[in-house]
Amino acid sequence: MSDLQQRFFATRKLTGELAAPLSDADATLQSMPDASPAKWHLAHVTWFLESFVLRDHVAGYRHFDDSFAFLFNSYYEAEGARHARASRGMLSRPTLTQILDYRRHVEAAIDAHWNNLPPAAFDLIELGIHHEQQHQELLLTDILHLFAQNPLYPAYWPEPVLRVAATGEVSPMEWIEGPSGVQSIGHRGNGFAFDCEGPRHDVLLQPFALADRTVTNGEWLQFMTDGGYCEPRHWLSDGWAWVQGEGIAAPLYWQQDQDGQWLSFGLDGLRALDPAAPVTHISLYEADAYASWAGARLPTEAEWEVVAASRHADEGNQLGAPAAVRPQASHASALFGNVWQWTGSAFRPYPGFRAAEGAVGEYNGKFMSGQFVLRGGSCATPRGHVRASYRNFFYPQQRWQFTGLRLAKDG
Amino acid sequence: MSDLQQRFFATRKLTGELAAPLSDADATLQSMPDASPAKWHLAHVTWFLESFVLRDHVAGYRHFDDSFAFLFNSYYEAEGARHARASRGMLSRPTLTQILDYRRHVEAAIDAHWNNLPPAAFDLIELGIHHEQQHQELLLTDILHLFAQNPLYPAYWPEPVLRVAATGEVSPMEWIEGPSGVQSIGHRGNGFAFDCEGPRHDVLLQPFALADRTVTNGEWLQFMTDGGYCEPRHWLSDGWAWVQGEGIAAPLYWQQDQDGQWLSFGLDGLRALDPAAPVTHISLYEADAYASWAGARLPTEAEWEVVAASRHADEGNQLGAPAAVRPQASHASALFGNVWQWTGSAFRPYPGFRAAEGAVGEYNGKFMSGQFVLRGGSCATPRGHVRASYRNFFYPQQRWQFTGLRLAKDG
Amino acid sequence: MSDLQQRFFATRKLTGELAAPLSDADATLQSMPDASPAKWHLAHVTWFLESFVLRDHVAGYRHFDDSFAFLFNSYYEAEGARHARASRGMLSRPTLTQILDYRRHVEAAIDAHWNNLPPAAFDLIELGIHHEQQHQELLLTDILHLFAQNPLYPAYWPEPVLRVAATGEVSPMEWIEGPSGVQSIGHRGNGFAFDCEGPRHDVLLQPFALADRTVTNGEWLQFMTDGGYCEPRHWLSDGWAWVQGEGIAAPLYWQQDQDGQWLSFGLDGLRALDPAAPVTHISLYEADAYASWAGARLPTEAEWEVVAASRHADEGNQLGAPAAVRPQASHASALFGNVWQWTGSAFRPYPGFRAAEGAVGEYNGKFMSGQFVLRGGSCATPRGHVRASYRNFFYPQQRWQFTGLRLAKDG
Amino acid sequence: MSDLQQRFFATRKLTGELAAPLSDADATLQSMPDASPAKWHLAHVTWFLESFVLRDHVAGYRHFDDSFAFLFNSYYEAEGARHARASRGMLSRPTLTQILDYRRHVEAAIDAHWNNLPPAAFDLIELGIHHEQQHQELLLTDILHLFAQNPLYPAYWPEPVLRVAATGEVSPMEWIEGPSGVQSIGHRGNGFAFDCEGPRHDVLLQPFALADRTVTNGEWLQFMTDGGYCEPRHWLSDGWAWVQGEGIAAPLYWQQDQDGQWLSFGLDGLRALDPAAPVTHISLYEADAYASWAGARLPTEAEWEVVAASRHADEGNQLGAPAAVRPQASHASALFGNVWQWTGSAFRPYPGFRAAEGAVGEYNGKFMSGQFVLRGGSCATPRGHVRASYRNFFYPQQRWQFTGLRLAKDG
Repeated sequence: MSDLQQRFFATRKLTGELAAPLSDADATLQSMPDASPAKWHLAHVTWFLESFVLRDHVAGYRHFDDSFAFLFNSYYEAEGARHARASRGMLSRPTLTQILDYRRHVEAAIDAHWNNLPPAAFDLIELGIHHEQQHQELLLTDILHLFAQNPLYPAYWPEPVLRVAATGEVSPMEWIEGPSGVQSIGHRGNGFAFDCEGPRHDVLLQPFALADRTVTNGEWLQFMTDGGYCEPRHWLSDGWAWVQGEGIAAPLYWQQDQDGQWLSFGLDGLRALDPAAPVTHISLYEADAYASWAGARLPTEAEWEVVAASRHADEGNQLGAPAAVRPQASHASALFGNVWQWTGSAFRPYPGFRAAEGAVGEYNGKFMSGQFVLRGGSCATPRGHVRASYRNFFYPQQRWQFTGLRLAKDG
Repeated sequence: MSDLQQRFFATRKLTGELAAPLSDADATLQSMPDASPAKWHLAHVTWFLESFVLRDHVAGYRHFDDSFAFLFNSYYEAEGARHARASRGMLSRPTLTQILDYRRHVEAAIDAHWNNLPPAAFDLIELGIHHEQQHQELLLTDILHLFAQNPLYPAYWPEPVLRVAATGEVSPMEWIEGPSGVQSIGHRGNGFAFDCEGPRHDVLLQPFALADRTVTNGEWLQFMTDGGYCEPRHWLSDGWAWVQGEGIAAPLYWQQDQDGQWLSFGLDGLRALDPAAPVTHISLYEADAYASWAGARLPTEAEWEVVAASRHADEGNQLGAPAAVRPQASHASALFGNVWQWTGSAFRPYPGFRAAEGAVGEYNGKFMSGQFVLRGGSCATPRGHVRASYRNFFYPQQRWQFTGLRLAKDG
Repeated sequence: MSDLQQRFFATRKLTGELAAPLSDADATLQSMPDASPAKWHLAHVTWFLESFVLRDHVAGYRHFDDSFAFLFNSYYEAEGARHARASRGMLSRPTLTQILDYRRHVEAAIDAHWNNLPPAAFDLIELGIHHEQQHQELLLTDILHLFAQNPLYPAYWPEPVLRVAATGEVSPMEWIEGPSGVQSIGHRGNGFAFDCEGPRHDVLLQPFALADRTVTNGEWLQFMTDGGYCEPRHWLSDGWAWVQGEGIAAPLYWQQDQDGQWLSFGLDGLRALDPAAPVTHISLYEADAYASWAGARLPTEAEWEVVAASRHADEGNQLGAPAAVRPQASHASALFGNVWQWTGSAFRPYPGFRAAEGAVGEYNGKFMSGQFVLRGGSCATPRGHVRASYRNFFYPQQRWQFTGLRLAKDG
Repeated sequence: MSDLQQRFFATRKLTGELAAPLSDADATLQSMPDASPAKWHLAHVTWFLESFVLRDHVAGYRHFDDSFAFLFNSYYEAEGARHARASRGMLSRPTLTQILDYRRHVEAAIDAHWNNLPPAAFDLIELGIHHEQQHQELLLTDILHLFAQNPLYPAYWPEPVLRVAATGEVSPMEWIEGPSGVQSIGHRGNGFAFDCEGPRHDVLLQPFALADRTVTNGEWLQFMTDGGYCEPRHWLSDGWAWVQGEGIAAPLYWQQDQDGQWLSFGLDGLRALDPAAPVTHISLYEADAYASWAGARLPTEAEWEVVAASRHADEGNQLGAPAAVRPQASHASALFGNVWQWTGSAFRPYPGFRAAEGAVGEYNGKFMSGQFVLRGGSCATPRGHVRASYRNFFYPQQRWQFTGLRLAKDG
């Protein structure tokens, strides 16, 4: 079995394991337009493979169900009409059982035709693996958001997260000087990367330093105690409007119990806040305000990448097995894992970027307005998925991903 | 077994049968704020019995689950805080299975304590039966609305509705003269009635006539062909704003196939429109505009009631068994069943009306603004539920119930 | 000069006097979609006369400006396309000066042709007078709403309102028994009336009593102190949603100064609240909640009318001259004037009502859904305009008119 | 008279001349939350001078009106509470006359104290000049937007714009190669610049070329004819959602007459579209879609600046005198003037950027999210205001400024 084949089936298997605790109803609900039902994620990644591998490269392939292209296309305009995103949560039929059958059907077909697939199909399978890994993370964060709407606060994985011994004190933050002058960023071209990670190109960096760890819950509480959410001068104008309009006063999923103790909700339910763990579920606006309050700033994506280039991308707290994930104090100094780190860089094309031809070309280019780049992966990112050149992106008010921050300053 | 006991358990049993085709996901979704998840209906009617019968009248009763009062109270302010109505569809947990257990638990407790209940508890059981019948109808109309959001248009009961022989020609509408002068309306006081049906009182009616049957789909198509939806002079001002704002051009659940043939969606799926059957799923605005176009008017609720008083309330096409329900041409001349008939009367209190004390007193009085009265019951109303004095009410733009119209004119 | 001619020119003159303090900018702004710019009122009543009197009945009449029909038609669908209501406040051109010229042009043309007008035109002039009186009241209430948006709280007429001696104590409310049994309501047919006031017809009334005066500011403060705005059981369900959604905690235009004293804003600016004066600027929801709190109810429109039929309609505090108007304690026992009194009756057609043919037929009939009837006129209603049979109507949440309440109870 | 003094009073004078055609009503209306009333612009720039020059640097200065700080502060949080932006259009009082008095009062006070002002005050006057120039442009574009809401389409300056001889043919677009490698951008430090234009710093540019002129109306019509607004693959995802949600099908202020001829509305009224003139009133989304359709891209702000650095910033069609302004074909090859040119760069801080201390420090930094940079100035930008390093910024959907585009490509 080739490495690709092994990774392909391992990825499919992990998806199934992550989905194992889902009831039919869990898998069907959509808690907000930004999120998708778990059933939709399970089917969509399968539709991607069915369309671009089986339909396009296996003669005579019979679709599992002709209606699924309409239901499970995400945003590929070239693939024709599709169900409205905000209505994905109205589909009690097909059932979870049918979607799991669909998954098996497509896996079996790919397995059966593996040896006869053309090279182009293997590129699409590679893309399909990485695409599915992205949806593994989204499936978890979307379920977390859904369960947070339930006043019973159910735990997806009731077992407490394994914590490394006692958390103890957090060491004071130190600054790491980064390499400056002319530096190269972007994907080097060996191994898989998404289109937006290239072309590799030179950038000119002024001297700078990055924090050696991400900001903690304890530090965030200081920001709150100091009136951080009430003082407009720390905030971007759009951020201040958001804070006031939405009544934001703490990270998402934080709440106080009757004694005023802070709790945070996660896939393992409501737990006491760990002051040593990295703060997460914050928006770019909050990250930027914190940095301003702290007399620092957010790193640019280039600064982050040139520091990260010398690290192992599989270090830190990333998703390996189907068990409750939380950012952990014990991995706070790793550059990868735990929490996605907001950068101060808008998500825009690198010099020389060109979208690929065809439907697959819609992958990233069309999202290059209004969003900010995040780097490093999180505790919900499948290990092996992230890279130093990896560019994730979200709108500045979004915070249902495991998003945190690492400070930077001019050197 | 007393008649009450028999009716109580028969009602509970019918609810179970109506819910039998539900998947966990079907039962969990909420398609709009006006509708509730089936699971919620199943639990709410049970919470009503648990609270007002068991908690209040059975010493030492243990609640099935302490969180359910919060989750399944509908609108009883006196019963404390409750889950927001528009968020009822976010509850994948508790599961359908747990809700069905809850139903059995409460039924068993009532059964066990039946012989020791005080008289006040039996009044509440009687109220509970009628309350549950209301929710049987809502469960069906809410599922219909949910399934209509699904581009696959699933049928809840795939079996076609039984149709009485050939539908054939519809007889021309005839006018029935109603009794005028001083007349009495409102519930007579024997047998159950909701609070808003009394006090019985005299009204003074001018001479009038009611149509001998409801308006048909075929007649509605003529209204459409004649530009009914495009001509503001037929419409109430609010209705015209609604037509334009929402782009309304046909009754709810109507659509045209590729050949321009009209179909209507029902609990038995998409079916060709039957021109002889009563039109349904229309708003008060549409009913009023049609009447204006037809040179007639809507009846007042008093006019309808004095005519209906001489009829059998269990006549016509009403809900008896768990099978797909549709308005039928064959029962169009019955005053009861098939479709709720919009009246021109605002839902306001009868002279001398006083809301009951306590939580149960919130039953109807507080809804007496902005809504119009409908009379007669529909194909989804459980047989035995409706009466000549029965006052149903909805906002003038609502149309997901089986709502139709019967014309009236001055005598 | 005929009586009609005298009344016509007096009405036009009063409009001009009411508008005298307006700056061009005052006259142009629209503070909410429900309100219209003063300039629009001034032009619209003139357009009404120009269209239905001059255009239709004077051969060769030349329009003052061809664009005005588009700009100043209110809602007459039969009169063709028109400027969107919510955009009336975008018209800085034509200027106030041009509109005043328009007024003079149309007045001069009517004056010049008066002796040659056909009888039908005189009916329309009569309607035009009453139509303009309605807009006199709206002009004042719309300006009041506009000025209330200005943080400087400018006074339209800075002179304080003339108050009748010392206000002193308010006498305790007494009940007046009304006539019951079969009674007649609706316009008798002599003199002018709007279409919706007829046909006169019999109604059957149960015994009832009306309060001998309207509810005062002082009584309203007791309702507030007693938690009236915080207790859902007093409120209609829609009303409670409105209170919570809009954060309603006092009548419109009330505010507290730094010492906690209540002030109310009027056309004479911000003034200390007079506890003896009738409460005003309340919604139907508030009126109904107060009545419920007070153990009473709102009168029906028929109850109000049969009591009012024996009173003089020109009694009380009504608009006579261009000076600041406020409800006055000294006229609280008059049935007419001071504040419009919310009734519990939905605005629906009387038995036998038919809308007139043609554009003028759109006058009232199409507004007969969702609104409640108010009776009696206010301090801003031109004296001579209101009648016992007069039916005013607004949506239950609207409160920028001078709206108050008089309690009723079953006899 | 010093150069500063001369420029200060010349700027104030030009503002007065630009405002001369305003009626009181024109000056009071606000056509959308993004725009401000002309009266507000006139007062706000004056408040800026009154607060930061007179209040802070002239002992004993008496404010013209104590309420004006509340009314005319724009967004300076440090300056305390202020009137809500979206409600600026509700202020018929103070009148235009009072605002013009306010302007004279502040000018006279500055004039009287000029010789005694400390150096810091002169820096603020310099800033005040540039601030007022920004509002001169906004005053014109806001009035244009307001007049575009008026169905009469009034001309602000009815005289036709002076056009340079016959427009004739547009020359084919040529590419200008720009300087690449390490280049410097940002303000050099001599002369005035806004805070966001610095610090000057090195950037690394790949080879590129800029178009020698901006895109014309005629070229834009080709894009439209080719289905540019209907083809999702040209569009950013947010842009496509905007096109569909808002029903966008042409630049702002374009309309077709009854014969299908395109007209555009400007400060000189409705005029036939000049195919040779630069297209304007387009959003970033439209600019980006056009570039994609044309096989090119938008320039980055650094690319634009390094080309512009060798040009005279006062070239081209910029605002000099109070007369109708329109982009002109005759100046299309100038890099400055005519239309602001959208770049593909998000508005973010330059390396080493720090906001100034105090209220003035809120000038630009807090707007650095969600917006795109525009370069070059427009026909409504006061001559002398713009520079090669000048960074203007708007949200990608905004288009009521004179915004256009110049293509770029990789070298």
